[in-house]
Amino acid sequence: MTVTVVTGNPKPASRTLTAGVMLAEQLTGSAPDHQIDLVEFGAGLLGWGDDNVAAAVKTVQESSLVVFSSPTYKASYTGLLKLFLDQFAGGTGLAGVVTVPLMLGAGPAHAMAPELTLKPVLSELGGTCALPGLYLLDATYADGPELAAYASRWKPVAQALMALEA
Amino acid sequence: MTVTVVTGNPKPASRTLTAGVMLAEQLTGSAPDHQIDLVEFGAGLLGWGDDNVAAAVKTVQESSLVVFSSPTYKASYTGLLKLFLDQFAGGTGLAGVVTVPLMLGAGPAHAMAPELTLKPVLSELGGTCALPGLYLLDATYADGPELAAYASRWKPVAQALMALEA
Amino acid sequence: MTVTVVTGNPKPASRTLTAGVMLAEQLTGSAPDHQIDLVEFGAGLLGWGDDNVAAAVKTVQESSLVVFSSPTYKASYTGLLKLFLDQFAGGTGLAGVVTVPLMLGAGPAHAMAPELTLKPVLSELGGTCALPGLYLLDATYADGPELAAYASRWKPVAQALMALEA
Amino acid sequence: MTVTVVTGNPKPASRTLTAGVMLAEQLTGSAPDHQIDLVEFGAGLLGWGDDNVAAAVKTVQESSLVVFSSPTYKASYTGLLKLFLDQFAGGTGLAGVVTVPLMLGAGPAHAMAPELTLKPVLSELGGTCALPGLYLLDATYADGPELAAYASRWKPVAQALMALEA
Repeated sequence: MTVTVVTGNPKPASRTLTAGVMLAEQLTGSAPDHQIDLVEFGAGLLGWGDDNVAAAVKTVQESSLVVFSSPTYKASYTGLLKLFLDQFAGGTGLAGVVTVPLMLGAGPAHAMAPELTLKPVLSELGGTCALPGLYLLDATYADGPELAAYASRWKPVAQALMALEA
Repeated sequence: MTVTVVTGNPKPASRTLTAGVMLAEQLTGSAPDHQIDLVEFGAGLLGWGDDNVAAAVKTVQESSLVVFSSPTYKASYTGLLKLFLDQFAGGTGLAGVVTVPLMLGAGPAHAMAPELTLKPVLSELGGTCALPGLYLLDATYADGPELAAYASRWKPVAQALMALEA
Repeated sequence: MTVTVVTGNPKPASRTLTAGVMLAEQLTGSAPDHQIDLVEFGAGLLGWGDDNVAAAVKTVQESSLVVFSSPTYKASYTGLLKLFLDQFAGGTGLAGVVTVPLMLGAGPAHAMAPELTLKPVLSELGGTCALPGLYLLDATYADGPELAAYASRWKPVAQALMALEA
Repeated sequence: MTVTVVTGNPKPASRTLTAGVMLAEQLTGSAPDHQIDLVEFGAGLLGWGDDNVAAAVKTVQESSLVVFSSPTYKASYTGLLKLFLDQFAGGTGLAGVVTVPLMLGAGPAHAMAPELTLKPVLSELGGTCALPGLYLLDATYADGPELAAYASRWKPVAQALMALEA
């Protein structure tokens, strides 16, 4: 079963990407098959029909589980991540995909953002959005207990749904 | 596996309750074990410690799947339903419960309300919130195709998770 | 111009009420004319037609500025506050009223709640919702700089709109 | 007093832009001073430091009133619009600017999107967000009564705040 991490950080190879990879590993027990760092697509994301972007959309749609990770900009997901999500068809674009909404931020004030901003978009695309939004501080995401506690709690749910929707 | 419908309509035996029962039946294949019509608790909901309310909370926590149904008041769930949800412990009150957020409304303008207002509260309580918010028009909920289409799409997910969390 | 504080805390004479009064004072320069502590209405809030509740609704509608204060329950406003807001007519119930959404919480994780849960309800009721949601920690609301900073920033806006809508 | 329309539609010269211009005119009594059609910036929006984008940010910050108009993609604002909003400083980037959130959509189901998705971002940027989110159907925005009714209701509020913050 294919597992993918999609990261919408204007800085390449960011902590946001690393956190997404860590979360995918802990939810599935192995490294993700694909890491899609959206910044690499550049202007290809601004329209429709770019080959690289289309291939990434296909990779996501064929995945069993996808972690969508974003830094928190203005108490929401980044424009960069939304550009990519805008490429999917409403209602069906993420059908059969178990989605994991992950956001990193500098402080605790925006902790509700993954649940209230990112997760509803994934749900609108028809994803199987069984896992709650996870918010991590960018200074402590790698060392704090939050990521592992979340993965431990939700791994059985993720795996049951990956098997079901396969 | 126990299935429960909780309805937060100030009018007893409402269409909101009927729609919740229909949805529970179509998601599980049989009539719900419990119907909790919150208006019957009256002032018992206004504090903590009422025996009937405590028993209802326990029934919900011991259920595998719970449909929470509410009319749409002011583009959100009712105060009556929130009074009941306020009785649960944050983070853990609905742990292990597969939740189904259902709202009825008079027109289409509030269709985003179940996903953006009710579902986040259920998620905050630690529920397994895998199913998207469902919004139905109160004039057509019983005859339109929406309820059956939703149940058909999400029944396998609900059943897999009911089995897992049991 | 009449100024009112409405508080939806199940505990009477709460810090939530005190914080609302402080905010009203700092936004207007004088003590509020009315303090409505919703818990006092008891079961009168559960239906329609209670005389005391109807009088409170009228007081709010005739006010120039109303602070709505709530503790944060389950990452949202309380059921008690929503019961009262459910008494108002959608679209017009708060027409001409400058609204101030205030929530207190135990920690910073729910700081987005006033803006994303309470303020949209006040807007749905037709209020003049020019001031952002304010979230204060219940341990430090009285001594920290946040309340005064907010009042200082938004007092001119509140006063201009109170004069306009009078 | 400077009035600006910012439009985040991947199609240039869209109905979204036209609706924004109409709304600005009806709220202020004259044509907007600036129309910023974000699609024209292309890849300049993907990073920081583009001269044209920086000039547009400055134009917005020096405006008294700005209409932000977006088509509704995935029940939210477009990634294109968010790319531009990500250029502003959190908390202060829109300080002193009266903001108007406008979204167009194909059907009524996403009517809550301007209030629940776009307006909170503008508020996070420190804007004076006194006007509610306006949602218009893209087939009828020009001929239906909604735009004029909204402008008529909120013109006095917009003008009072434009004068105040000038």
